[in-house]
Amino acid sequence: MSVATFSLDDLVADLDDWSVVPADVESASRDRSGSPIGPAAIVVRAGSVEQVQATLRFAHQHGIAVVPRGAGSGVAGGAVAGSGSIVLDLSRLDRIVEVRADDQVAVVEPGVITADLDAAAGAHGLFYAPDPGSVGISTIGGNIATNAGGLRGAKYGVTRDAVLSLDVVLADGRLVTVGRETLKRVTGYDLLGLLVGSEGTLGVVVRATLRLLPRPVATSTVAAYFAGIDEAAAAAIAVRSSGVRPVVLEIVDGPTLAAIDALEDTRLRANGAAFLLAQTDGHAAAIEADVIAEVLAPLATYVETSDDPVESARLMTARRQALPALERIGRVVIEDIAVPPSRLAEAIRGIHAIADETGARIFVFAHAGDGNVHPILVVDGDELPAYAIEAVDRIFALALSLGGTLTGEHGVGLLKRDWVAQEVGGVVDGLQRAIKSLFDPAGILNPGKAI
Amino acid sequence: MSVATFSLDDLVADLDDWSVVPADVESASRDRSGSPIGPAAIVVRAGSVEQVQATLRFAHQHGIAVVPRGAGSGVAGGAVAGSGSIVLDLSRLDRIVEVRADDQVAVVEPGVITADLDAAAGAHGLFYAPDPGSVGISTIGGNIATNAGGLRGAKYGVTRDAVLSLDVVLADGRLVTVGRETLKRVTGYDLLGLLVGSEGTLGVVVRATLRLLPRPVATSTVAAYFAGIDEAAAAAIAVRSSGVRPVVLEIVDGPTLAAIDALEDTRLRANGAAFLLAQTDGHAAAIEADVIAEVLAPLATYVETSDDPVESARLMTARRQALPALERIGRVVIEDIAVPPSRLAEAIRGIHAIADETGARIFVFAHAGDGNVHPILVVDGDELPAYAIEAVDRIFALALSLGGTLTGEHGVGLLKRDWVAQEVGGVVDGLQRAIKSLFDPAGILNPGKAI
Repeated sequence: MSVATFSLDDLVADLDDWSVVPADVESASRDRSGSPIGPAAIVVRAGSVEQVQATLRFAHQHGIAVVPRGAGSGVAGGAVAGSGSIVLDLSRLDRIVEVRADDQVAVVEPGVITADLDAAAGAHGLFYAPDPGSVGISTIGGNIATNAGGLRGAKYGVTRDAVLSLDVVLADGRLVTVGRETLKRVTGYDLLGLLVGSEGTLGVVVRATLRLLPRPVATSTVAAYFAGIDEAAAAAIAVRSSGVRPVVLEIVDGPTLAAIDALEDTRLRANGAAFLLAQTDGHAAAIEADVIAEVLAPLATYVETSDDPVESARLMTARRQALPALERIGRVVIEDIAVPPSRLAEAIRGIHAIADETGARIFVFAHAGDGNVHPILVVDGDELPAYAIEAVDRIFALALSLGGTLTGEHGVGLLKRDWVAQEVGGVVDGLQRAIKSLFDPAGILNPGKAI
Repeated sequence: MSVATFSLDDLVADLDDWSVVPADVESASRDRSGSPIGPAAIVVRAGSVEQVQATLRFAHQHGIAVVPRGAGSGVAGGAVAGSGSIVLDLSRLDRIVEVRADDQVAVVEPGVITADLDAAAGAHGLFYAPDPGSVGISTIGGNIATNAGGLRGAKYGVTRDAVLSLDVVLADGRLVTVGRETLKRVTGYDLLGLLVGSEGTLGVVVRATLRLLPRPVATSTVAAYFAGIDEAAAAAIAVRSSGVRPVVLEIVDGPTLAAIDALEDTRLRANGAAFLLAQTDGHAAAIEADVIAEVLAPLATYVETSDDPVESARLMTARRQALPALERIGRVVIEDIAVPPSRLAEAIRGIHAIADETGARIFVFAHAGDGNVHPILVVDGDELPAYAIEAVDRIFALALSLGGTLTGEHGVGLLKRDWVAQEVGGVVDGLQRAIKSLFDPAGILNPGKAI
């Protein structure tokens, strides 16, 4: 794509903040995936919906790629910008327009940091449920683009479950609203669900009405250790069968426990070769934690329960410190497969086998409540070595062979697009491309991502 | 559409059960909407996925409309068949293929009756959460086509929330799978969500993998009466703010209570001019019911709580007998708007005003947990009188003016399609039609429905 056939002057006339300074453009062309960048021709920092519309009209007219961007915290390359493209940075659109307590909704712009929305909701006795690991840095727009999950998903679901309606600028600059500020609605097709998770390839979200929930009156924590992954995975199934739906249900493998011990001077690994963390919330948090502890007792080497926040924080160390501990060993590459709950043990054992066979250092933790497994590769240097690439490919193949998916919550981005057709099949792949063409006939919106 | 340009002999050669007998075709061309029918040219009772594919290939080749059909229990005209069309009856595909307890899923064919799936799940200690009023007669395929809701939606959501993957025959006869048997997945676009609720206009579901949940160990019931609708609606908001998410949260208006009294010899209306029913379930059902009862006490004229099944059944009379009581007065026309929770009182008061002004007899009950209001018109005779049509039109206008929707759970079908563009806007209406053309270029799948 060339910038020679048009003048950026025509674009910037409608803008109040943009840059073509190489350092600005280069940093705006990256995300946390480490994927190679173009870099882009210009970064537009949109200050209004009208500026988003003007940018897309210009790009549509001239056939220029537009890469929408929030905080750039994505790990799948969804916000990586190719040469000559326009980076459309939405982080200035960061107003929490309103929180309506009676309806339990917030109306926000896409640049709002997820944790800031949660804090604003808190002032009304409410909270925003989706809590990706990046909650302190990622934007709502990015969360919507990737249909972000998080720890609390076991009970509260993912971002799509929290989105009631969206204002979206289409590829040609038209502004539409999809969805409705009702909790239920079956008028027409679910374009709202289609847009959530589409990684900026079908439209650019400029406003969202999001569902909030009452802030829980109490939280209880159960921490348990097991002889191995099979026992921990069986315990997770037992919890799911108990009739208690925990807010959080996380598994951490033995190598990760050992890594935390090495760096934190703890002795977690001595408790067992796999860790399971469960949290319950609400008026019955303590009762539900007791049910979980009873279910776990016969399966575990060690179980501890607490309703006390300080004590709970200690019990959560084995999960909270997992990623920080691994980040201190080397550069981490976070993978993100999901499998049916009954295949969790096979998935984690398979990943350990891939580590042994390829020589890759791979640690595993998983959202056991929904079968979403994060294999964490630790590598040296910026380039991914060949054995690590082989390990990742084998992890994807393993996921598909277990009836699973390439990505549970991080998205396809650039990094996984070669695998999409294998997961969804050729006909569905074709339908996805046709839908992309329908929404974006000129192919300008985040080309080469998501599908 | 004419049947003269092709021979049905070519179609029926691939089938083992079909009829062109007028009485058969005519009854298969109707649903419970009372909408006028064609009738169709033939009813095909598909006995296999291959027969569904053969039927669609034939129809696609010859440009013949195909109207997929389950039990015909829909009330919006979604299964009404026009002249010369093929009714594709899926009720013979009624196998519960498997229930996998560890994964908490069932794999079923579309003709399975919803209550039968729930019963099969029960044998594994599980249940199927969506419970439309038609649960005893409607099929899973029909529930998926309309994204059916139900009483338990306040806690457990709607049919879309329970669908993990679908096998779908496309308009041209190709068979695809959308979704995956994982609880989380962000690979590609959400075609699964798009197909759910599309009323058979984008494809024909021939198999579904559905999410089940552990059967609750206990249920508690709270019944409360109020001086009026404003107080009851305020009470529903207070319950939603309490931090307890009830399974069921239903409002019944005073005229409906009086109708039950007249026919059941009860004295419900004497307790108050509006009724609120809440149910909680699970290990903490009793605690959660106590929280609700405490929240309601200062707002209500009368509150009663029970954990006993027989006593609970008595408390539920005012909701369970609502529709049967109205059906004994005359023919009922069930409407289905949804509004933001804070507008519930305005919606119900507005409906009462429309009843007064048009002279229509309208009774109201509502799923207060999600703002889904069912105005029930009671009329004499088969034809809808002019004043009733005016009342329905004004109810739709009221819903939209309150930020609501035409249909919360019943679907658009034939009956509401004239209103769709007004709700979604012209651009989104155009996108919906373009998606329809993409999936079904010949326009054969349930034409004139849903969008």
